[in-house]
Amino acid sequence: MIISIEWRGTSVRFLDQTLLPEKEESVETSDLAILVDAIKRLKLRGAPLLGIAAGYGILLGARAAVNSSYEIFLAAVESAAAAIAAPRPTAVNLFWALERMRNVLRLNPGDSPSTLFEKLESEARAIHAEDKAMCEAIGHAGDAIIPRNAKILTHCNTGALATGGIGTAFGVIVTAHQSGKKIIVYADETRPLLQGARLTMWELQKMGIPGVLITDNTAAWTIKSKKIDVIITGADRIAANGDAANKIGTYNLAILAKEHGIPFYIAAPSSTIDPNISSGEQILIEERGAEEVIHGFGKLTAPEGTAVFSPAFDVTPHSLISGIITETGIHTAPYHFAVKR
Amino acid sequence: MIISIEWRGTSVRFLDQTLLPEKEESVETSDLAILVDAIKRLKLRGAPLLGIAAGYGILLGARAAVNSSYEIFLAAVESAAAAIAAPRPTAVNLFWALERMRNVLRLNPGDSPSTLFEKLESEARAIHAEDKAMCEAIGHAGDAIIPRNAKILTHCNTGALATGGIGTAFGVIVTAHQSGKKIIVYADETRPLLQGARLTMWELQKMGIPGVLITDNTAAWTIKSKKIDVIITGADRIAANGDAANKIGTYNLAILAKEHGIPFYIAAPSSTIDPNISSGEQILIEERGAEEVIHGFGKLTAPEGTAVFSPAFDVTPHSLISGIITETGIHTAPYHFAVKR
Repeated sequence: MIISIEWRGTSVRFLDQTLLPEKEESVETSDLAILVDAIKRLKLRGAPLLGIAAGYGILLGARAAVNSSYEIFLAAVESAAAAIAAPRPTAVNLFWALERMRNVLRLNPGDSPSTLFEKLESEARAIHAEDKAMCEAIGHAGDAIIPRNAKILTHCNTGALATGGIGTAFGVIVTAHQSGKKIIVYADETRPLLQGARLTMWELQKMGIPGVLITDNTAAWTIKSKKIDVIITGADRIAANGDAANKIGTYNLAILAKEHGIPFYIAAPSSTIDPNISSGEQILIEERGAEEVIHGFGKLTAPEGTAVFSPAFDVTPHSLISGIITETGIHTAPYHFAVKR
Repeated sequence: MIISIEWRGTSVRFLDQTLLPEKEESVETSDLAILVDAIKRLKLRGAPLLGIAAGYGILLGARAAVNSSYEIFLAAVESAAAAIAAPRPTAVNLFWALERMRNVLRLNPGDSPSTLFEKLESEARAIHAEDKAMCEAIGHAGDAIIPRNAKILTHCNTGALATGGIGTAFGVIVTAHQSGKKIIVYADETRPLLQGARLTMWELQKMGIPGVLITDNTAAWTIKSKKIDVIITGADRIAANGDAANKIGTYNLAILAKEHGIPFYIAAPSSTIDPNISSGEQILIEERGAEEVIHGFGKLTAPEGTAVFSPAFDVTPHSLISGIITETGIHTAPYHFAVKR
């Protein structure tokens, strides 16, 4: 069992994912600034895990003001929320988790800081526990789309390292494997940060699931020459019409699925769905710096001064998505996600 | 003007491409062993450039025996040819160039070593000059497909570093730039060996052509969000029906072009066309080792023991190709390449 994050009463502990696969090292801290920096540097990443980290981050901020006045306590929570929200604007789960934490304060206006802290703590633990249960439900729902002996293509990392449980798209993979379907997983390395190579291959190895690594530009030829049966990825934000933002390269895969006549599925908790956004055009796409691309391997791989276009995400239009797997089942077109949370 | 290789009368000088983009360093040598080692270590690469290097390599071997007997001179040329052919057994242009050099000896049986050397020298220079002219003809022919202010997407390296002139697909780009069309070039980094990042971006910078580097998996989103007008790549082998083998990732780009309704062109000298192969299915695809993918930059990017699928090339079916640009013009479907060479 891979534990990517854990609340330790007065501190949060998380695996430093930037060190994988070479080193399996955890960070334990009660300093919110260190957690925020870790989010910024992608030591912690994955939309659901960011939601969990946001909850625990609020606890770190609140804990520092638990012996202060009510007003200072509220201000400390607000300030923590602002710090946590800053680095990753596309991750809706993060904002959703912060809202859940803020709601605890709104719903309990008369409570003392120490009582509020206890309620915040149980809310943060609930976010984590619910995510774990949600992964299992997603895995269970998604198992239906995986044939026996399936060759599955996936992108980035959507497993235990991206969530509080077995994962989203990876949760479907784990569930299919554990039900004895003898699957093989092809994983894109996922430039620039290589989450597929570094993290997904590591998780596959840990779980004993047969896996083959490919460079991102090998996906099309792999689908054709290895006869891939199904593509499944996660999502970072899903609009009401089913358009889905996910790690850069996902849109590419959805086009390849269409061209080769194979299904393309998204698996994500329903907290990823943003019913306030009617289509993918309204999704803000975070752009990353050039360094990750041209200096990512500890060695300059392009001339100094090279202009780089490095969006962290792309948006796959709903028309290219065969189905969206959430903890409530498999949703298919037409998508009308309008449930207010 | 980038000079990737040059015959200096008694020595050959070439850019050491393994040092790019960090260092721009040439090697000048009259020692054949140093040139052969450079070919082996990919200090020189690119199919047309290898053909040119083979011609000059023969000169280095022949020069050392120019004052010897006829028999010793012939033996020196044969021994040079064997040494040059050894390191890159799949490089067709290299064998083709060696055959041209051998033919000089066959066609002039009575000549003295010093006369033969002069004839060899003019043949080697001719191989280089013809390649240069071919690049210009390809650039000229291809210019017709590049609109003013075009945003062009390309893959791998097909420029001066791969040829004896301005390049093939890159030659089209250079020609369009020099005709004042105000183009912008988006270049895939081209994993695993990053020829796009290391070499194409360097050439763009040298030529003063505006260029933007992207990771391979950013191509689809770049086409959509930046409104790419045309995709152009090179080819390593083209079947009689127009199916084209090229650097892994090319097939992916051709699918993206179709999905976005933009043209996808191949540019290559007609020596790349193999009329003896009726379709791309007969093209053998070389598979590379896992190390290039998981250990390519002196740092482990996936767990030890990771299985990797790393084909060096893929095959783009002719149905996805808008046109094949050679030195004789732009060929379009239906392709019936049957000219014997």
